[in-house]
Amino acid sequence: MSSFSFTVEAECSKSWARAGTIQTAHGKIQTPIFMPVGTQATVKSVTPEELREAGAAIILANTYHLMLRPGSQLIADFGGLHHFMHWDGPILTDSGGFQVFSLGHLRKLSEEGVAFKSHLDGSALLLTPESVMQIEHELSADIILPLDICAAYPCTYDTAKEAMERTHRWAERAWIAKEGYQSEQTLFGIVQGAFEPELREQSARFIGSLPFPGVSIGGLSVGEPKLEMWDLLKYVTPELPKGKPRHLLGVGSPEDLVIGVGLGMDMFDCVLPTRVARHGGLFTRYGRINIKSARYRTEHRAIEEDCDCYTCRNFSAAYVHHLARTEEQLYYRLGTIHNLRFMLRLAVQLRAAIIAGTYPAFRDNFLALYTPTSEQVRENQRQKWKAARLQ
Amino acid sequence: MSSFSFTVEAECSKSWARAGTIQTAHGKIQTPIFMPVGTQATVKSVTPEELREAGAAIILANTYHLMLRPGSQLIADFGGLHHFMHWDGPILTDSGGFQVFSLGHLRKLSEEGVAFKSHLDGSALLLTPESVMQIEHELSADIILPLDICAAYPCTYDTAKEAMERTHRWAERAWIAKEGYQSEQTLFGIVQGAFEPELREQSARFIGSLPFPGVSIGGLSVGEPKLEMWDLLKYVTPELPKGKPRHLLGVGSPEDLVIGVGLGMDMFDCVLPTRVARHGGLFTRYGRINIKSARYRTEHRAIEEDCDCYTCRNFSAAYVHHLARTEEQLYYRLGTIHNLRFMLRLAVQLRAAIIAGTYPAFRDNFLALYTPTSEQVRENQRQKWKAARLQ
Repeated sequence: MSSFSFTVEAECSKSWARAGTIQTAHGKIQTPIFMPVGTQATVKSVTPEELREAGAAIILANTYHLMLRPGSQLIADFGGLHHFMHWDGPILTDSGGFQVFSLGHLRKLSEEGVAFKSHLDGSALLLTPESVMQIEHELSADIILPLDICAAYPCTYDTAKEAMERTHRWAERAWIAKEGYQSEQTLFGIVQGAFEPELREQSARFIGSLPFPGVSIGGLSVGEPKLEMWDLLKYVTPELPKGKPRHLLGVGSPEDLVIGVGLGMDMFDCVLPTRVARHGGLFTRYGRINIKSARYRTEHRAIEEDCDCYTCRNFSAAYVHHLARTEEQLYYRLGTIHNLRFMLRLAVQLRAAIIAGTYPAFRDNFLALYTPTSEQVRENQRQKWKAARLQ
Repeated sequence: MSSFSFTVEAECSKSWARAGTIQTAHGKIQTPIFMPVGTQATVKSVTPEELREAGAAIILANTYHLMLRPGSQLIADFGGLHHFMHWDGPILTDSGGFQVFSLGHLRKLSEEGVAFKSHLDGSALLLTPESVMQIEHELSADIILPLDICAAYPCTYDTAKEAMERTHRWAERAWIAKEGYQSEQTLFGIVQGAFEPELREQSARFIGSLPFPGVSIGGLSVGEPKLEMWDLLKYVTPELPKGKPRHLLGVGSPEDLVIGVGLGMDMFDCVLPTRVARHGGLFTRYGRINIKSARYRTEHRAIEEDCDCYTCRNFSAAYVHHLARTEEQLYYRLGTIHNLRFMLRLAVQLRAAIIAGTYPAFRDNFLALYTPTSEQVRENQRQKWKAARLQ
């Protein structure tokens, strides 16, 4: 009944990188892929046509936000997310779990599910593995995720184990609930285990053994140092079945994409490229620049001279700087388009390198040129965004 | 040397409406025309390509804002506004006078010019008829306006007369200064006279007699009742030469366009269509609706079912409502595109009616269907916007 399939077309002999193709009812996705995030049924500031032009093959939308506004039932009445937002390509919806866990004191966890108060109006709500399947069924994305428990960083071994075990029990409940809908949707499993290598291995083996056609790795990029995240993936990937696509949830930056591919990841999603763009941070092969900086005031050249994005093909860095400094709405779009195109072109380049057998050299060359934003800067930004996260 | 020309192609026998064509170095403009306002070298939220698609033939940019940021010299270094903002159609720049007069206590008027403090950093600046010509030369728009004095509403006869006479002396100084640049730019004259029919006639005769190839009517739509504005135009139009295009500065709404054309106006500009769009006010043939209203929450149809704008062709009113309610950036663009297309399509319809000899019927039918926003609502909005005007 499902039109979902995944085929691996090339594997790197010196890393775990692979190039593949995911087939969905709304089209093909060539991997590795970056998925732009359209939290409220819109990737902030851009149209579906602009997403296509930037190279987007699949986007992610947030169940938590959409169940509150405009409501999943209303979206179902409009024939699902694709029709509602006028995007005919594949869509993935998360489970809402991550956002609920971010609510902190506003939520209460039990075996049944998670009770929480809406960040919008304080109304009391309950998410269970079963209700999430219903909501995601109403949203009608191609790929859907089950309710899971994302432990905080840091946390004790016992907390990590308990969260993982409940996540596993919920995964089975979600699978059973999802079967009831007989829909074309594809449910991925989610690996948890916090920062315990042993639990990560265990979770990967367990989730990998269930009939989920794909696997998302959750609970990472929640504040830990990057090296710790990469280290944990070394325990996860070898335990996963090779024939299922692997999605690294909530990651990341350009360098994360390049490194994560080598650790066996096929799919990535993150608000970072679009969010930093709105704050003036634009990607180049040398690292992230701040377009608001005075050095761009008189720059006749594009943000990146050989970039093929709409922004760089049509506007000088000085004009983009002017729009950013005067907080013109067009800036947010031009910056967003540039960063999305950067991520999506990077995914295409990574795929080409894997197929050509040159991924390790591509990775090393990229990382030699690209200066990542420092951990300290990232942590400060994270704290700031966290404070404003659900607004 | 100038490539500017204006030809009248059709005149209405029962009103002063006419259809014409303005030729500029950057292309033709068929009149009547509405000019979207791109204050800071960008029509808020839309790209040049989207302006074209909405039917824009000419846009207006604000000298006051651009001289402050990014500076007219910088724009000159980029080859002028067309190159800087990537718009290859005609552009009109105002003189900055209207904005300076809005600064109230921050400005000081003398025969030389007007001294004022920047609303951005408080720095002391001086605009004279000559310096404005230099700045507008640097901006390089196709049509430029001279520094004028816009009297407040209401004001005494003496104040009105003094402002008008100085505007006339400044017009002559501007003309002389402009001649020095030997540019392809076309300088329009500005008619003032506040709310005194006799002064309006006098100003129209005087400005019309000078060698300006076009005439802008200034000082209207500054808070007076609409009927008073229309009444004054009845004194202005008969005094103007028929062979020059007439531009009604800062006007207006859909109904203003329909009525103004019958009073002999050819060109209109106003932030209203784009500004009200950003606040949720969208035009339909029946009047302005508020897309944030709960009645659109479940509306499957477009904002206006037979509208040919990008927004209405692709999205339900419910989706636009969702974006507006969640304050998503894409909303501002979708709303702006709809209202711009409405104004530009209306201008095309007015032209067709004039050519077909059916303008009076078109006007009457339009006004019979269209419920204008009430004077009280308009006045409240005006006060709110005035408070935030230069931010």
